[in-house]
Amino acid sequence: MYDTIIIGAGPAGLSAAIYLIRKEMKILILTQKIGGQIMDGPLIENYPGLEQISGPDWVGKVQKQTKALGIEIKSNQEVKKISQKENGFEVATGADKFEARSVIICSGKSPRKLGVPGEEKLLGKGISTCVTCDGPLFRDKEVAVVGGGNSAISAALELEKYAQKVYLINLGQELVGEEVRIDKVKNSPKIEVIAQAKTTAIIGENLVEGLKYQDLNSGQEKEIKCDGVFAEIGWLPSTGYLEGLVELTAAREIKIDVNNQTSVEGVFAAGDATEVRYKQLAIACGEGAKAALACWDYLANKK
Amino acid sequence: MYDTIIIGAGPAGLSAAIYLIRKEMKILILTQKIGGQIMDGPLIENYPGLEQISGPDWVGKVQKQTKALGIEIKSNQEVKKISQKENGFEVATGADKFEARSVIICSGKSPRKLGVPGEEKLLGKGISTCVTCDGPLFRDKEVAVVGGGNSAISAALELEKYAQKVYLINLGQELVGEEVRIDKVKNSPKIEVIAQAKTTAIIGENLVEGLKYQDLNSGQEKEIKCDGVFAEIGWLPSTGYLEGLVELTAAREIKIDVNNQTSVEGVFAAGDATEVRYKQLAIACGEGAKAALACWDYLANKK
Repeated sequence: MYDTIIIGAGPAGLSAAIYLIRKEMKILILTQKIGGQIMDGPLIENYPGLEQISGPDWVGKVQKQTKALGIEIKSNQEVKKISQKENGFEVATGADKFEARSVIICSGKSPRKLGVPGEEKLLGKGISTCVTCDGPLFRDKEVAVVGGGNSAISAALELEKYAQKVYLINLGQELVGEEVRIDKVKNSPKIEVIAQAKTTAIIGENLVEGLKYQDLNSGQEKEIKCDGVFAEIGWLPSTGYLEGLVELTAAREIKIDVNNQTSVEGVFAAGDATEVRYKQLAIACGEGAKAALACWDYLANKK
Repeated sequence: MYDTIIIGAGPAGLSAAIYLIRKEMKILILTQKIGGQIMDGPLIENYPGLEQISGPDWVGKVQKQTKALGIEIKSNQEVKKISQKENGFEVATGADKFEARSVIICSGKSPRKLGVPGEEKLLGKGISTCVTCDGPLFRDKEVAVVGGGNSAISAALELEKYAQKVYLINLGQELVGEEVRIDKVKNSPKIEVIAQAKTTAIIGENLVEGLKYQDLNSGQEKEIKCDGVFAEIGWLPSTGYLEGLVELTAAREIKIDVNNQTSVEGVFAAGDATEVRYKQLAIACGEGAKAALACWDYLANKK
């Protein structure tokens, strides 16, 4: 029986583990892969204390910390179900079952993929999933944002501060979002909305060079030149296995309070899988730490 | 008119500033001193990505970041009042007034001091205000916790994992806190509760060597030897100037939601001054980043 099982070894899970092991808790991390989304970040420039670092390098540094602290991580583990037991929880993966007095869920979320040629190859080489992180890298360049909802609109409005030109490639006819922002997009001299455009490929050898789309009115395939592509077509929180355990929002994110308590006593959550709106390295670390300390408090109050 | 004024340049305020300036916002930090509480941290071992660093060194690194980004910080500024205006807020310090469309409050909190000889001199040299941070540094040593409430009880229970001996120096006759934890304290072979004891001095030349107290029953002055002292007698959130602006808790901490929105539109808060229960570097950074992004979203939705 573990004190705590942490699900996910992205920044939130690793941070939670550092906090709990220093309190001499018996903990286990179950994860599919170590590092999570941040492994796709080529350059992090907004983590306080580290001026510039790549995602994989950051994960490397933290893995050094977790190894020194003796944290047990089991990789290639997909959690299928968490069940409540008399004195805690049972966590079932495909092959195994583990028991713990408490659980911290840090299973993250994945960006929806465009599913077009060039996407896998150029991820982190001009294709980004984070405007807040990578926007400033495209100063005076040309970028394309794929999407037509609020995140795509926000991305375009943020990118126009840096980029020379922003294409907003919208599958639909109209943008869907807050009026004020849509007006700002329409009035921007830098943003060009291309409506009814289905993205079909991202072009480039070592770096993004352009984007191909089908004009759904004419059926014609067209091409624009650009240095960056931001696919803002939504996220999929990894929360399917929590069905029936904790309360989720309509977007299937885990509901938490300011101290990372879920709707179930003994279950805490942190990072991108939660309803916290912003998906950032520093935020995931902070949330992981909060969940760990709330979890420790919870266990200290039990017999 | 600034886009955002950030009050406080501790970790939460600095982190918020890094996020906002990268979005090309016009921001100003008003602070009494740069760094906040973390300046008193001799060794940080739980910040993901930096295995070991002192508080002042961490602040030095972040100041390098904020300087490179061109963040404007005005020090020695005590904010006296924030007033709502038609299009934002007016922030008044002793001598000046500043206007901004939004405000992020990161003014932190201060530990209550014992106010005894030796305290100033030995802070960071055996006297600590953070068990989570510094507890593991006292492995196999003797420590004293001053206090008799929940934080003191928690501190003692955590320290008994590392220390050889834990004195709990309580001014009152009985501990005040959760039954389960009080029982754990009473049953611990390592924790010795000294009741009705008024701490009168902390002894030591370069490092803590012991603690003096007055036995309130006999009136006698007594002394114990110890290597560390944790004063757990409460905190004072720096929120007096917010009276009448935002909702506070009974403990005078700022009420926020999971995305750092206070009770007033356009006012966000992060870090130790808020009701977030845990006072940690990684947490303050994450909260600052969340407040900054929520603030940016708020301004993007305004005309």
